[in-house]
Amino acid sequence: MAPSSSDAPSPLPIDLLVIPSAIVPIEPAGAVLPDHALAVDAGRIVAVLPVVDALARYAPRERRDLPQHVLLPGLVNAHTHAAMSLMRGLADDLALMDWLQNHIWPAEGSHVSRAFCLDGVRLSAAEFIRCGITCANDMYFFPDASAEGFADAGLRAVVSLIVLDFPSAWASGPDEYFAKGIALHDSLRGNPLVRTIFGPHAPYTVGDAALRKTRAYADELGIGIHMHVHETEFEVADAAQRTGKRPWERLKDLGLLGPDFIAVHMTQLTDPEIAEAAQYGVHVAHCPESNLKLASGFCPVQRLLDAGVNIAIGTDGAASNNDLDLFGEMKTAALLAKGVARDAQAFPSTRALHAATLGGARALGLDGEIGSLVPGKAADFIAVELSAPHLQPVYNLISHLVYAAGRGDVSDVWVAGRALMRDRRLLTVDEDAVVANARQWRTRIRPS
Amino acid sequence: MAPSSSDAPSPLPIDLLVIPSAIVPIEPAGAVLPDHALAVDAGRIVAVLPVVDALARYAPRERRDLPQHVLLPGLVNAHTHAAMSLMRGLADDLALMDWLQNHIWPAEGSHVSRAFCLDGVRLSAAEFIRCGITCANDMYFFPDASAEGFADAGLRAVVSLIVLDFPSAWASGPDEYFAKGIALHDSLRGNPLVRTIFGPHAPYTVGDAALRKTRAYADELGIGIHMHVHETEFEVADAAQRTGKRPWERLKDLGLLGPDFIAVHMTQLTDPEIAEAAQYGVHVAHCPESNLKLASGFCPVQRLLDAGVNIAIGTDGAASNNDLDLFGEMKTAALLAKGVARDAQAFPSTRALHAATLGGARALGLDGEIGSLVPGKAADFIAVELSAPHLQPVYNLISHLVYAAGRGDVSDVWVAGRALMRDRRLLTVDEDAVVANARQWRTRIRPS
Repeated sequence: MAPSSSDAPSPLPIDLLVIPSAIVPIEPAGAVLPDHALAVDAGRIVAVLPVVDALARYAPRERRDLPQHVLLPGLVNAHTHAAMSLMRGLADDLALMDWLQNHIWPAEGSHVSRAFCLDGVRLSAAEFIRCGITCANDMYFFPDASAEGFADAGLRAVVSLIVLDFPSAWASGPDEYFAKGIALHDSLRGNPLVRTIFGPHAPYTVGDAALRKTRAYADELGIGIHMHVHETEFEVADAAQRTGKRPWERLKDLGLLGPDFIAVHMTQLTDPEIAEAAQYGVHVAHCPESNLKLASGFCPVQRLLDAGVNIAIGTDGAASNNDLDLFGEMKTAALLAKGVARDAQAFPSTRALHAATLGGARALGLDGEIGSLVPGKAADFIAVELSAPHLQPVYNLISHLVYAAGRGDVSDVWVAGRALMRDRRLLTVDEDAVVANARQWRTRIRPS
Repeated sequence: MAPSSSDAPSPLPIDLLVIPSAIVPIEPAGAVLPDHALAVDAGRIVAVLPVVDALARYAPRERRDLPQHVLLPGLVNAHTHAAMSLMRGLADDLALMDWLQNHIWPAEGSHVSRAFCLDGVRLSAAEFIRCGITCANDMYFFPDASAEGFADAGLRAVVSLIVLDFPSAWASGPDEYFAKGIALHDSLRGNPLVRTIFGPHAPYTVGDAALRKTRAYADELGIGIHMHVHETEFEVADAAQRTGKRPWERLKDLGLLGPDFIAVHMTQLTDPEIAEAAQYGVHVAHCPESNLKLASGFCPVQRLLDAGVNIAIGTDGAASNNDLDLFGEMKTAALLAKGVARDAQAFPSTRALHAATLGGARALGLDGEIGSLVPGKAADFIAVELSAPHLQPVYNLISHLVYAAGRGDVSDVWVAGRALMRDRRLLTVDEDAVVANARQWRTRIRPS
């Protein structure tokens, strides 16, 4: 007699089944899925489905039960200078230009090298993973070192092909910045985790010729552009006075603006500029803690949202923050937007969490790949443990993730299905070595 | 032959010697003392001295080596509603009056009881200790429950003898609020950890008669006054329109202002009001995250400091924050003040750390007892571990504590020489029970 069970399909072997207390997939917006599991195979999300169905359908090679945890997409840090973590706290309580010209640039002039950048990125990689960041949009010298450091840690990253008019340890001028950047881009073709983006530093450090070239090469290579724009009132007023044009208008005239353009900071915006940002499909990387610390101004987040502009969130570098904690940054962004808009309903928690995940992915052109937990996307996700006293009780899981949870609650991190942190232990970064290296750089940069 | 060692005094027995990598005593301002130890006996600080001297001078019953840690005074949470942690996240992304009238007050009307308050305070006590808070200035119904909850946890606290014109589960009206408050005050006489302060809720909830009585009783009992003042623009404009007086002026006319008065929030201030705050010696409890979340306005912290006003920092209640993390609040306060003042040098890290420790102690009239690590004061102190990646490298320990460290870095907490947390394990609170109770309240408050 044939067994009747032969009618039921046999369970499908997959790499990993994670069973948390709930899943916040980001898509659909606002969804909270209790009693759901996440199925992963070959680095991709296979399904988000009720636990009972998952147990019937799959035969996972690894099963991970996280009954006190919520799963969500890994956070996307939309703007950072990872290597600068070695200058964390080097010069605090100073305005942007004083901080840059009298402290950061001289220290960079003396110490930045490929070794500095690699050690700095490794330190930041450890911090990113501990904070639940699975993808970073990085801008700094030696982007080849950034690519190496992120890839070694198993993190996803977009590294900027930095462009400046002035020389640095990385390149002598625009021609060499472009040449080295394009060579790096070519060397990273096919890399599963690291991509490139052009990174002309800022309107006040890159001239028209290099900006025109940036647009031409970006179109040719099919990659985006990532730039500091309207960070401070001074910078905007100074340009307007010298040239008769605000930087935004100049970027528009040079053809830089478009749906592949990430404008970082954007604290000084007129109503027409906000409308144009929406019209061109520009993405804004909002870095509230850096803007506050350097007293740069307030990004009008809710007005940008109302106009239809995509908002992403970045920590900026650790030298102006001074951490790389996107949970903290997301909370600050959600709180500050309310104060700035004088409206307690501004930038609500669902929007803030979207900005820190899918909004960042969209800015980077990676929203088909990451930013939400839907089948087919890469398995970049994190577990947040809900058992600490500061997370009791839970009424609204999404506002909880924004207003109450923090970096310390992140317990597990996966990128492309690979575990980078398990039960708060880092698996891809030698934390002791990273910390020891950072301490050595400390004594070199400021002997005492 | 008499041994020459008889000339050296024999080591003095003391309870505890803690040997960290450095001590930040808060007094003198800006001091960082590497290779120093903290000597404690009978609940008080005996000495802060070089390790070599400490080892020669003392024979501690317990010696604690914390080579990766910095010691600093326990943080003072200058304004909170501890029991409200049971409503953490109950209603988010709403303006103050909507939040209060349509969500918080109805929930309080249905659920607040002595049992609710005791369980809420116990939950908050666990969070306070984990966040390095050793003293809280609390205002809520059933202050007797608060006193019990804090005392059981071994925390220092000042509980408000709350006064309102309208009835609550705690009292039927002003007469009963005063009677019960004064009875509680009497019952706490001689309590080593818990003191009292009058807590008339706000100008818009307490009439002139009860405010006059508050001042009279405060003088008679020699205790201070703790009140929400100028939290929102609406409240100030509404009072001015109805009565012809801004609330500040009314409080001044009623004789409430003085060096025993803690004004909480203070987001709406004219220049003369700032000058008067200094002149009367009023203390400001600044709650930046709550002010942002409810879009209440910005407290002009640097202008108050410039006028000579003492600034303290509070988390407010967890229902409008949504955590009780004074490390996070201190960072937000330091960052936001710069944005508001448009000056990156505003409220620098030394001042922010002072506000979260000695400034809070001073506001509570406890600066002779706590707030800095000097001999004779109570041994209320915490250890912050510096080994995480997000704390590398260390250039400036004080700015590091404000801008980079967080609640998760607090490893050990002592109050009056008693350990409340050791290596991140709570010693005086049953964390499992506290969390389980919170979850039960969750299902009662919002069955789902």
